[in-house]
Formats: sequence, C-alpha cells, structure tokens
Amino acid sequence: MSGPLKGIRVLDLTRILSGPFATMILGDLGADVIKVEHPSGGDGSRGNGPFLADGYSSYFLSINRNKRGITLDLAHPRGKEILLELVKQSDVLVENFVPGTMARFGLDYPVVERLNPAIIYASISGFGQTGPYAQRPALDIIVQGMGGIMSITGEPDGGPVRVGASVGDIVASLYCVIGIQAALQERAVSGKGQMLDLSMLECQVAIEENAFARYFATGEVPGRLGTRHPSYTPFQAFETKDSWIVLATTGADGWSLFCSAIDRVDLIDDERFTSGWLRTQHYQEIEPILSEVMRRKTTREWLDELSALNIPCAPVNSIADVVKDPHLMYRGAITEVQHPVLGSLKTVDSPLRLSRTSASVGQPAPDLGQHTEEVLTELLCLTPRELEELRQGKVI
Amino acid sequence: MSGPLKGIRVLDLTRILSGPFATMILGDLGADVIKVEHPSGGDGSRGNGPFLADGYSSYFLSINRNKRGITLDLAHPRGKEILLELVKQSDVLVENFVPGTMARFGLDYPVVERLNPAIIYASISGFGQTGPYAQRPALDIIVQGMGGIMSITGEPDGGPVRVGASVGDIVASLYCVIGIQAALQERAVSGKGQMLDLSMLECQVAIEENAFARYFATGEVPGRLGTRHPSYTPFQAFETKDSWIVLATTGADGWSLFCSAIDRVDLIDDERFTSGWLRTQHYQEIEPILSEVMRRKTTREWLDELSALNIPCAPVNSIADVVKDPHLMYRGAITEVQHPVLGSLKTVDSPLRLSRTSASVGQPAPDLGQHTEEVLTELLCLTPRELEELRQGKVI
Repeated sequence: MSGPLKGIRVLDLTRILSGPFATMILGDLGADVIKVEHPSGGDGSRGNGPFLADGYSSYFLSINRNKRGITLDLAHPRGKEILLELVKQSDVLVENFVPGTMARFGLDYPVVERLNPAIIYASISGFGQTGPYAQRPALDIIVQGMGGIMSITGEPDGGPVRVGASVGDIVASLYCVIGIQAALQERAVSGKGQMLDLSMLECQVAIEENAFARYFATGEVPGRLGTRHPSYTPFQAFETKDSWIVLATTGADGWSLFCSAIDRVDLIDDERFTSGWLRTQHYQEIEPILSEVMRRKTTREWLDELSALNIPCAPVNSIADVVKDPHLMYRGAITEVQHPVLGSLKTVDSPLRLSRTSASVGQPAPDLGQHTEEVLTELLCLTPRELEELRQGKVI
Repeated sequence: MSGPLKGIRVLDLTRILSGPFATMILGDLGADVIKVEHPSGGDGSRGNGPFLADGYSSYFLSINRNKRGITLDLAHPRGKEILLELVKQSDVLVENFVPGTMARFGLDYPVVERLNPAIIYASISGFGQTGPYAQRPALDIIVQGMGGIMSITGEPDGGPVRVGASVGDIVASLYCVIGIQAALQERAVSGKGQMLDLSMLECQVAIEENAFARYFATGEVPGRLGTRHPSYTPFQAFETKDSWIVLATTGADGWSLFCSAIDRVDLIDDERFTSGWLRTQHYQEIEPILSEVMRRKTTREWLDELSALNIPCAPVNSIADVVKDPHLMYRGAITEVQHPVLGSLKTVDSPLRLSRTSASVGQPAPDLGQHTEEVLTELLCLTPRELEELRQGKVI
C-alpha cells in the first residue's frame, strides 16, 4: 500500500460498524490496520446477511477491506500479553466496546499509555466514556432516535423516519478518523499520544448544526419537512408527470431563471417571494403553484430545460440508478475488489482522491484469522511451535 | 488556540456549507483558519435566516466559528496577488467553487503549487473536478437526490424524504478534513503537498455502504423502510401509548430478554425468529405482534423496563429534548460562545474530545472583514497606507 498513511500501524479492536468503518478509511489511506477478533466467531457482523457464497457476509466484506485479520482472545492472559506486545509497535489503537470493557481486559488507556506513551488511543461509544448514560449500549437507531435526527426526518404529517444509511454509526466513524489524524499531527510536534473519547450521540448532534442554530435563534422546535430545506425555497423534491425531481434555486438570478422556465415570470417581482428565506416564510402560498406546474412535464423534460438554464436539479436516483450513473462510472466511483474465494466483488470506492497518494480499495476483507501467523511472526517473531501452542490453547 | 492542529494555517475560500463546516472543524482543532470573503457581502450564507439582532445570520454564525475573516476581491489583480502571497505562508487551501472558477481567477492548483509545492489544495465540488457533470452546480438536495439516500429514506408507501440534516454537504465536509489531514501526514514524510479532488456525490455514496452491499449481493433495489433497519429486526421505532420509542435487540440474549420483557417467551424458540436476520425475513409476521404490544405502555414505562434488562432503547427526541438531555448537559455537548455584539450564544460543541489537546468552540464567527488589517499586517507586513489604498480600490 502506498497511501498517505503508509507507515502508520493501527491496532483495531472494533466490531460491527462505527469502528470498522473508521479503520477501513485508515486502511484505504494506506495504514497497516490489524483487525483483532475473538477466535470463536470473530466480529459479530460476519453473521449479518445477506450472504454471498460460502456464508460470506456482504455486510462484513463491505466495511473491512484493507485490513489484516488476526485472532486473539483478549480475556486469556496470554492473549492480553500478546496484545500489549503489539501495542508497543503500534501508532493507533481503536476500540468500540461499551465503556469499562477495555478496563476489564486490563487494556484501558492508562495501561496502554504506560507501555507506549506515543500511542493514539481512540474509543468510540454510544455516549462517551463519562456521564450518566456512559454504560448504556447504543446502536445506530438509538443514536438516531436520541440525537434528534429522526425528529426532523419524515413527512410533516407522519411519524419519525430513520435516515436510510446508518448515520448514527458512520458520522462517528468519520469524526473518529479526524480525531486520530489530529492527534497524529500533534504527536509529530510533541512526541506524545493521547486518548480520543468519542460519543456517537455527540457526533450525531454535531452534524445537525442548522436545526440547533434555528432552535437557539427562534425557540421554535424544528419539525419534519418531507423533502424541504428549512430555510431555502424551492429546495426540495417535486413529483413530475412520471416520477420525481429535486431542484434548488439560489440567488436572485436562479429564482428569475426558474420563474421563466415554469412560465411564471409574474412571480419574479412578487414581494412575498424575492428571496429564498422569504419564499420559505410564504411556503403555503408558493408550494401549490410549484407542485402543480412541476407535474406538467416528465422528469427528463424538466432536467433538460432546467439544466440548460444552469439551475441545480437532478433525478431522485435509486441505488440501482446510482450504480449505472455515467458520471460515477467515468469517475470510477463504483469499483471492484478481488477476493480469493468469491472472485471480483463490486464495491464503492473511497472518495478520498489525492493527486499523489490517493486512497484505494486494495485488499478484500480478511477471513477470520487469515493473517494471524503472518502478523505474529512479522511483528513478534513467534515461532511455528509457539503459534501451535497458542492455537491449542485457543488463544488465537 | 492550543488544539492539535496548532501551527497549521488554512486559507479558506469556501462559502455556504460544505467548505465552511470543514474549515470550522480545522479551526476547532486549533488551525489558524483565514476565511477569505468578497468585500461586497461576503459569504452568501450571511444572508440566510433566521436572523439574530442586528441582522446576524444564525446559520452563518453556527458554522464559521474559530476563523479569522478577511475580505479580498479575487477577481481584482491586486486581490489575486495578495492571495498568492498568503498562499506562500499557508499549509492548506480549501475552496468549494464550481470547478473551473479557481482557474478563471488564475488560482488553480498548478499555479498555487508552483508558488508553494508543500501546500495541500482541497477542492470540494458537487461532482468532482472531472467527468461529464463536473461543471454542474450542486447543493445538498441535489446530492441527496442523486446519491440515492432519498430513495432509501421515508415510509415504504410514501415518497422520497430528505434527511433532515444537510448530509449531502456535511459528509463531504468530514471527508474533506480527513483528506487534508492525510495529506498533512504524508507531507511530514515527503515534504510535498498535493491536491484533494472531493466530490460531494461520491462522499454521499460512500456512506451508504450497506445499501450498496445489499444491492450487489442480491440484485434487489433497496427501498424505503420507515424507521426499520434493512437487516436487523427489531431495530426501529415503535409507537407507544403516549409517543415513540426506538429499540434494538442484538444477539440471542438480547432477543430472549426482549421476549420476556413483552411477556412473549413463546417467541424465543420460534424458529422463524431465532436471529435478527431471520426476523427480518419474517418481518410481516413479527411486526404486528411487536407493534401491538409496544402500544400497551408509555415510552417512559418501556424505557424503564427495557433499560433494566440492558436492552438498547431510547426516546425519539426533539431538538428541544436533545438540548436539555441530562447526559449531554453533563458532557457539555451544548456550550456557549461569547460574541462581542450578540453576547452569549448557545452552540453545539465539537465532539472531538482529545485528552491533552481537545477541540474547542473558541471564537465566534468573524464579522465581514473583521481581521483584514490584522492578517494583512501580521503576515504581509502591509502598512496602514497600503491598507487604505486597498480599501479605496475596493480590493479589500
């Protein structure tokens, strides 16, 4: 691997989604990610369907590429000992157990820091390492529910809706990578590591900036708006003659052009509608006009007309549409990874396109324990006999 | 500022959301972010409501803290000249204009790289710098529509729904910070900078991992599922006697405990329901049972009972609920920033809690041109007379 994080070694004790997605990004960027799994079964997400041939989990495969996989029973004294040896040779440790678990293993930050003061120790948990909810388990739906995003996603007259992607987990993954990299940057100056205490709930709240800013400014509790934006209008999806279209107008020019495209130049100077914010204030008046007019043509017809005027617009794509989109194909955004058993597997490429040392999808997710011998031989110089003993003792 | 990115200088040419949110994170982490705005009006988001006293935009304030603000007309030869002088003293340049704009200013990567080969030049755009859609403008709703997330968010029998937070922008912001930091890490080894070509659409697609993995595995196009998870059950919101609750069970233990909590131990050994994946396959059979039982008690009653069994569960919080949540209050997740005109402003804190050099909300967003004199004097040693000439010439 030749990505920008080449030379950085990451001990990855994470499972399920928030941690594995973070360490996948580090792996895509060229770090040597060593995924540590329990010898019996490993990461629980290996059991999540849908499954490909031979019981391979498509879910697990999609978020564990670019990692070497080793098995180690952390609850076994010899397993813990081996992990601490690996700690000495690593730059980063990432874990996403419920707070307290690492301490029970005897692997909490004070222990690890003593052995390797330069290590970055990143913990992802639902609520963070401190506070009244710290010990509670959390999963994506819990974070989405508690963090408020479900209260602002959905139809105005309907119930709360879950964001269709696991943003409760994945936003924390992205912040985790940011925190780790910031600490690496600081370490280059100070020589010292530190601990990152990341709460999924706090990450979720952090990306809802606009909703909180509006609430603090007005005292009005943001609600569900269907496809609308809370402060711009139009900035939403409309039904067309045959399907849906999303469009947005910004600036006075955009609005004028849009009014001419829909044959309603009379709206341009209507003082209720002269800015995106004013149009939002008068949404009840403008919505019926726009909804009616957008139903007169097909999505394709509108896309052609509005694009010609440089008005931002797009179809509402299904996942199947996305995969065959000509622009994404041109960019190579959907790519393939070669798996030794399953052959060529389609996967979404990393969006991190750097001109000299780009991220890449590289290697497929490891089988359970695939690199145990390789890693323990390479880093700890264990002999075949020692490895055999560890295997017999179910340590690896 | 004493965050982990102390000593890193960022020239910030971004506007609206995707860029400013990224540079805010860099500022929260201690980088010296110099936000460059056009002298007449500046960042368009200064005009976005709702407004606080004196016409201050709550939107702008919420995503531009920890930046110094200067004005500079990049289309003016002297403005360009000053920018290029600043380039020589910066580590990072970030811009989110439509591709081609920076070249028209004479400020594209080849020009900047020639002056400062160590600079990291990060461009965020809707579709990336290359490909058939490169020149198209994009906004959050366009990215959400085209990227597929709206096709998997909403009720099964309803239309597409926009994620209530601007994930089309903000996910790109987070990836942007990751890409910049990765390039900084690589620069520490090679001494060279590089360009990051970030596409909002590709970032959006990258976080929908599970939907694509399922589609590639099965050929079935993922649809809208309301509050459900596509592969775990139960993992969703239910209506209770008085409101809503989200809950999830994982593992055999979680399911057994849940069955006993709802007085349906008969379900534990029902072979249709023995794993989360199987329960998803038999969703039509299990959903009515669970929906009915969850309506029998209030959210508070269920939370008490399920929490006692360590089953992940939570209320569906409104934005107002989030702000007064005791755990988030304990953690200080909602904090305040002191504004010289507006006084104390509530804001969401950075979730990046590092043990030695944590991120912090620090300084409020700058007024337009607030730091022009300070920055141009400090970095370029301009005299009061030169500054006055620039002001007269409307360059600053």
